[in-house]
Amino acid sequence: MKQTSTTEWLRSEYKKNEASIIEDYLTFLRFPSVSADPAYKASVLDCANWLASKLKALGFSVEFWETSGHPTLFAEWSGAGPDAETLMIYNHYDVQPVDPIEKWTSPPFEPVVKDGKVYARGAQDNKGQCWYAIAALQTLLKRDGKLPLNIKLVIEGEEELGSIGLARILSDHKAALKADHLLVLDCCVPSVKTPAVTLGLRGFVGFEIELTGSKFDLHSGSHGGVAFNPNHAMVELLAKLRDRNGVIKIPGFYDEVVPLSAEERAVLFMDFDSGQYQDEFGVLPVGGETNLTPNERRWTRPCLDVNSVWGGYIGAGIKTIIPAKASARVSARLVPDQDPHVIGKKITDFLEAECPAGFELSIRKWPGVGWPVRTSPDAAVVQAVAKGYEEACETDCKFILEGWSVPVIAELAAVSGAEIALAGFGLSSDAIHAPDEHFGLDRFQLGFLMTARSVEILGERARNRQQ
Amino acid sequence: MKQTSTTEWLRSEYKKNEASIIEDYLTFLRFPSVSADPAYKASVLDCANWLASKLKALGFSVEFWETSGHPTLFAEWSGAGPDAETLMIYNHYDVQPVDPIEKWTSPPFEPVVKDGKVYARGAQDNKGQCWYAIAALQTLLKRDGKLPLNIKLVIEGEEELGSIGLARILSDHKAALKADHLLVLDCCVPSVKTPAVTLGLRGFVGFEIELTGSKFDLHSGSHGGVAFNPNHAMVELLAKLRDRNGVIKIPGFYDEVVPLSAEERAVLFMDFDSGQYQDEFGVLPVGGETNLTPNERRWTRPCLDVNSVWGGYIGAGIKTIIPAKASARVSARLVPDQDPHVIGKKITDFLEAECPAGFELSIRKWPGVGWPVRTSPDAAVVQAVAKGYEEACETDCKFILEGWSVPVIAELAAVSGAEIALAGFGLSSDAIHAPDEHFGLDRFQLGFLMTARSVEILGERARNRQQ
Repeated sequence: MKQTSTTEWLRSEYKKNEASIIEDYLTFLRFPSVSADPAYKASVLDCANWLASKLKALGFSVEFWETSGHPTLFAEWSGAGPDAETLMIYNHYDVQPVDPIEKWTSPPFEPVVKDGKVYARGAQDNKGQCWYAIAALQTLLKRDGKLPLNIKLVIEGEEELGSIGLARILSDHKAALKADHLLVLDCCVPSVKTPAVTLGLRGFVGFEIELTGSKFDLHSGSHGGVAFNPNHAMVELLAKLRDRNGVIKIPGFYDEVVPLSAEERAVLFMDFDSGQYQDEFGVLPVGGETNLTPNERRWTRPCLDVNSVWGGYIGAGIKTIIPAKASARVSARLVPDQDPHVIGKKITDFLEAECPAGFELSIRKWPGVGWPVRTSPDAAVVQAVAKGYEEACETDCKFILEGWSVPVIAELAAVSGAEIALAGFGLSSDAIHAPDEHFGLDRFQLGFLMTARSVEILGERARNRQQ
Repeated sequence: MKQTSTTEWLRSEYKKNEASIIEDYLTFLRFPSVSADPAYKASVLDCANWLASKLKALGFSVEFWETSGHPTLFAEWSGAGPDAETLMIYNHYDVQPVDPIEKWTSPPFEPVVKDGKVYARGAQDNKGQCWYAIAALQTLLKRDGKLPLNIKLVIEGEEELGSIGLARILSDHKAALKADHLLVLDCCVPSVKTPAVTLGLRGFVGFEIELTGSKFDLHSGSHGGVAFNPNHAMVELLAKLRDRNGVIKIPGFYDEVVPLSAEERAVLFMDFDSGQYQDEFGVLPVGGETNLTPNERRWTRPCLDVNSVWGGYIGAGIKTIIPAKASARVSARLVPDQDPHVIGKKITDFLEAECPAGFELSIRKWPGVGWPVRTSPDAAVVQAVAKGYEEACETDCKFILEGWSVPVIAELAAVSGAEIALAGFGLSSDAIHAPDEHFGLDRFQLGFLMTARSVEILGERARNRQQ
């Protein structure tokens, strides 16, 4: 069977079954599986149960792996036999909270299809990308009665919480997780016309910082000029983190950064359209080290952001106080070979050394850290996915990196022993984590094609190797 | 009549009538006259009406002066005749909001008397200080059937909102406000054993600042190192306001500051107990210009405080975003001869000049400003009040300044043509504007004595001058 004709067949088969595929996708979206909010605990479980029943119907054996939080769903199809290669696919069934709810055009858990797009929380991240993959496997199973290699699905319920629960139990499931290839379907492409395999993600480590001064809030008239204001201390401390060129001033912050090799640089699609960025986000991409291009900064350099800062009365009206304390949340994104624990120590050392005298400084590390991920463009799974993208999109596939993190991926790859490919059909304009999240049905179909073809190509390669 | 015997008589008369005086005081406290919260609008008016009926019963003519907000109560006793001198007494019947309500030991509008202290919102600020003055006038009227000079009471309903409404209508009531002496009873003493007339208050001007970057919150992974974070811009901007020695770096900020004269310095009680300050507030008094003593700083120098700062998600859990905007509230306290409008312009000019590029800066001036107040220790009303304090407390009276502001006082003095004395029996430990506000009944009585004697001494002086 020629690849082109397979792709044609998949395309027509998708069209034939689109109504039922999308119906299932919308059902998936209707579960308010918000992992962050305990009020949704039952809905998260309902969602996992529904997903499990769907996968069982396809012939997968399904386990729920209990974690400290929501369970991970582990589904396996091992019909290719013990000697065949195994592809593990990672997705998550949990979604972000919906706040600010008032900014949604339609209710986040009542999906609406409009102008070829599905609007709902999770429409892209990650239920859309999870469901096109399942639909692809279903279609291959329907045609052949089997899959071309063994498949393991790890679909977790706490990605939006940093995968802390899953990370803790990985080593308990080392045998089950053994795989040759790991495909993470939680990523974006630069555009539909520029498909790309993602070769790396940044790691991360974050902190909550609190500076406490007086026993209680003080009147800023009686105490102004007398008591040192924790808001002043906090802005002074946070301002020291970076210089005016965007360079992070924490000693040793960049020490372990491995520069891109010439080979990596040659293969990466580094184009960046600043005008388009400004149109889309309303700002120029001028936030980091001024001597580097935007994609060099977000892909190959670590960064540090004050995610939030607060101190004093911030409600309506005015309270002229010197607050008792000021707080901030700060997080770093990391690149190879930065160790989140080592960088975390450098950050806390710096904050402790630079904290103005007269305050009690408390630093709490966020639960969980993320190691940076980097994979090779030569990995078999990367090559297969690149070809899958090319057949789906009918154009050359590029290679990119991403600035964000899926904290558990590096550890999952290490435990499984698999090579990684990161892929997906998200766009930066999908408003994930924001009101009116959406996903284009055109991209849903492309994801379906890319996944199905990637699985077939990997299977074909494995068969060729065995012969 | 010898002064000492008058004081004795007042003391015994107070004891005789204490139950009914305190009953009225507690009734006054039961009105939740929170000026800041529209939900209490009717209660504010109920409080003013009750007060008006009490003053009418004493023989005062009472007017309600409508303002843009809550009315000012103007009460006059003019029985001393058109040629007699007039003393105006300033108080306010509105109170601060009660948040955080959960930190109150007993409900803020159900006054509780415990260990000789009254616990309630307004117990000190300013219903306690208002009511001992009214009780003093009532006692003098009861004894003599008249007062030794004409009395005008200005009791406003918006002091806790910055007296904006009253400030706007002062010129409409210029004739009614004419007075020789103005006694403001909203102040503190260093301690019961160290009574002091306050010779000055600081002025103020404040702003809300907003820095807007992107159209919406951005993912800090995808955009970290690319988009310039408004939290970074805000902390950088705010950190520039002061140097590490506490000196405000706004050009010309100190230009109009008039240093204390040798005479003023000689008369002022500048003692400051840093150990006691630390015990009481939990911090050392190290917040301002390091080359000056704490009282020099809060009394004779302007200051600038970041009252609040906020940007990004500050709820429970973590949102790794680069927020679309960051905000802050900043206010300056001013001393003679600083003009709040001139200093306000210097602050906004500085913020505009120093704002990092790439952000939209919005600066909104708070409604109302406060001019600094300074009075002479030689003013007749100051001398009379000092003597009143000495007789009440049976010790020498000192002279101090205060760091806080009663915005309307400078304008009220200007319109009335009166000399000012600032007095009261508050202590810094009274928790005004905070949970469990309280006032000692010992100080309530001392305030009663001080006010009654001050009125008598001023009247005596006026009679002596006429003879």
